[in-house]
Amino acid sequence: MNTKINKIDVHLFQIPLPEVLSDAKHGDHHFFELITATVHLEDGSEGTGYTYTGGKGGYSIKAMIEHDLAPALLGKDGKEVESIYDFMEWHIHYVGRGGIASFAISAIDIALWDLRCKRAGQPLWKMAGGAADRCKAYCGGIDLQFPLKKLLGNIRSYLQRGFNAVKIKIGREHLDEDLERIRAVRELIGDDVTFMVDANYSMTVDEAIQAAEAFQRYNIYWFEEPTIPDDYQGYAKIAEATGMPLAMGENLHTIHEFGYAFEQAGLSFIQPDASNCGGISGWLQVAEQARRYDIPVCSHGMQELHVSLVSAQSNAGWLEVHSFPIDAYTVRPLVVEDHLAVAPSVPGIGVTFDWEKLEQYDTAGNVKFQGII
Amino acid sequence: MNTKINKIDVHLFQIPLPEVLSDAKHGDHHFFELITATVHLEDGSEGTGYTYTGGKGGYSIKAMIEHDLAPALLGKDGKEVESIYDFMEWHIHYVGRGGIASFAISAIDIALWDLRCKRAGQPLWKMAGGAADRCKAYCGGIDLQFPLKKLLGNIRSYLQRGFNAVKIKIGREHLDEDLERIRAVRELIGDDVTFMVDANYSMTVDEAIQAAEAFQRYNIYWFEEPTIPDDYQGYAKIAEATGMPLAMGENLHTIHEFGYAFEQAGLSFIQPDASNCGGISGWLQVAEQARRYDIPVCSHGMQELHVSLVSAQSNAGWLEVHSFPIDAYTVRPLVVEDHLAVAPSVPGIGVTFDWEKLEQYDTAGNVKFQGII
Ligand SMILES: [Mg+2]
Ligand SMILES: [Mg+2]
Repeated sequence: MNTKINKIDVHLFQIPLPEVLSDAKHGDHHFFELITATVHLEDGSEGTGYTYTGGKGGYSIKAMIEHDLAPALLGKDGKEVESIYDFMEWHIHYVGRGGIASFAISAIDIALWDLRCKRAGQPLWKMAGGAADRCKAYCGGIDLQFPLKKLLGNIRSYLQRGFNAVKIKIGREHLDEDLERIRAVRELIGDDVTFMVDANYSMTVDEAIQAAEAFQRYNIYWFEEPTIPDDYQGYAKIAEATGMPLAMGENLHTIHEFGYAFEQAGLSFIQPDASNCGGISGWLQVAEQARRYDIPVCSHGMQELHVSLVSAQSNAGWLEVHSFPIDAYTVRPLVVEDHLAVAPSVPGIGVTFDWEKLEQYDTAGNVKFQGII
Repeated sequence: MNTKINKIDVHLFQIPLPEVLSDAKHGDHHFFELITATVHLEDGSEGTGYTYTGGKGGYSIKAMIEHDLAPALLGKDGKEVESIYDFMEWHIHYVGRGGIASFAISAIDIALWDLRCKRAGQPLWKMAGGAADRCKAYCGGIDLQFPLKKLLGNIRSYLQRGFNAVKIKIGREHLDEDLERIRAVRELIGDDVTFMVDANYSMTVDEAIQAAEAFQRYNIYWFEEPTIPDDYQGYAKIAEATGMPLAMGENLHTIHEFGYAFEQAGLSFIQPDASNCGGISGWLQVAEQARRYDIPVCSHGMQELHVSLVSAQSNAGWLEVHSFPIDAYTVRPLVVEDHLAVAPSVPGIGVTFDWEKLEQYDTAGNVKFQGII
């Protein structure tokens, strides 16, 4: 059969959130952006990949797929996933190496993996390592500005949904406020529930050291993004000074950035996001790097896809269940059984969008949110 | 007067090159892209900034300015150049830190500097340091695939235009080919003309060491981008093993990337490009960093703007005169006197586009080149 790429359809959806969500450094989120890329082959098969943002950059990602990637990919053999990945990296290298280019490449790469898994008649978790079909998972909200009572109600809802691990945002104006929230959450969940915190890189290294020391008594499982992702050596200083396990990765976009993080940052967990580190090909490269450093590979965002990738790894860490509900726009929202997230068993990446539900949020001729932010 | 931003106009021009130009890693260039951003203030004043690409990413940059930056900048005080710069960095941080975001931010920042210089009634070279109004300059072509005779003809034309420094592309399939071209150019220009080479990161560290050793007898002033820009420590290995002065910077997009380069790469020259490292604000941060490391600050591309920035620095290095002829679409193409490039003396950044000449290449409703590459 002829597996040449003959069409790529791209859509940008701006999907409202049920309420405004805020963290320490990204401001208010009114909506999130979902960018889908459907790759059609000459044999009639098709695969859909996607990426997402917190509300900025979607038009730019869509433009790069439409104008820079799609025209250059037409006619290439859609089976050659890894060589197309390399081609894309070099093709937009001058305007790339991270940023928008990594998001755009990710959407295409995931679509090619969807085709690959469908051709093989296998689910993604089998094709991406096959270690298991389920993994540990935790729930985390963009809840920095929630009043305490609402924060605790939110945590309760995680436990009711079957999770036994939770994460909250920190980085409020005063460390005391963070500590009050951490203490209240620990009191609520008891000693047996795993508890992480995420500062969204809002602290200096010294502030993070002070914070990490204050957190110790609350048995914090990891401290995520204490400081800016660029400061690898700053991370190592925090880890060395406090012994607190550190996690990051959602803001690393190239294999080189991950390499520096593994080499220099003293991390205990790595959190690549296949939507912004080069898709499934990029994510698996990071997972392999993590194995060499004996670090568990976790994830950031889009749980409906990462559940398959994390489960599949021999060094599986924790799946983040993020508060952008992409899975609510698919035919199979995330499944949780016995505290574990369960990967889809159908051939393909297992993420099938409900296009009818999405349609109203398509920005084509329908720019709803421009100017709000 | 009210200096609030009340409108930002963005254009993307795809401007054909007189002939197809090729280097070691970016493939063939049929055209280049010019993205302009004109910022209007409520007092009626306006400033124009811009960025450019080798033919990919232009639509993506334009989309980011239009959808993510411009709506968020309306109403801000256009005088607050540095705080707007910081705002932009954080505003698109999640999809940024380099790549398309750095190009988009650059165009806006340059426009704000144009307004700043016009308000002060001063030329850019005075506002950006004021050390001098002229600087050393060299001419370099995207000439890797030119037959030798044509390459030498090109070099002759540089000398005729008044330059006493030249650069050629290297990185052909066999090192012998590079050496033959280098020998021929050195024979043509004699011992007194400064001569650089640029591999566009096409070599491994070991290949670059071998190449640098072979270049020594031809008195090469610097070896530019021998290997990938991400491999800071690889650069240091090449420098240490061979003593060859190394240069890079056109592919570094954040102050952190430059920081790692200064710290780890053993560079002799740094080449920031204000079109992709955060505009004039970003470029001046790099120049300041370079002073601390006692490294001359050079430039990459858009000579019509960089002539003012390089000239203004106490640690001025060399201006690159690039083969994308942006200055041919302005009212003042680059001026060279006594081998030196001369900065414009008019208030503003001194780059005034010839909009009538550009109009035919505006992509708005006129997508000429899509699909060629
Ligand atoms: Mg996080
Ligand atoms: Mg160069």
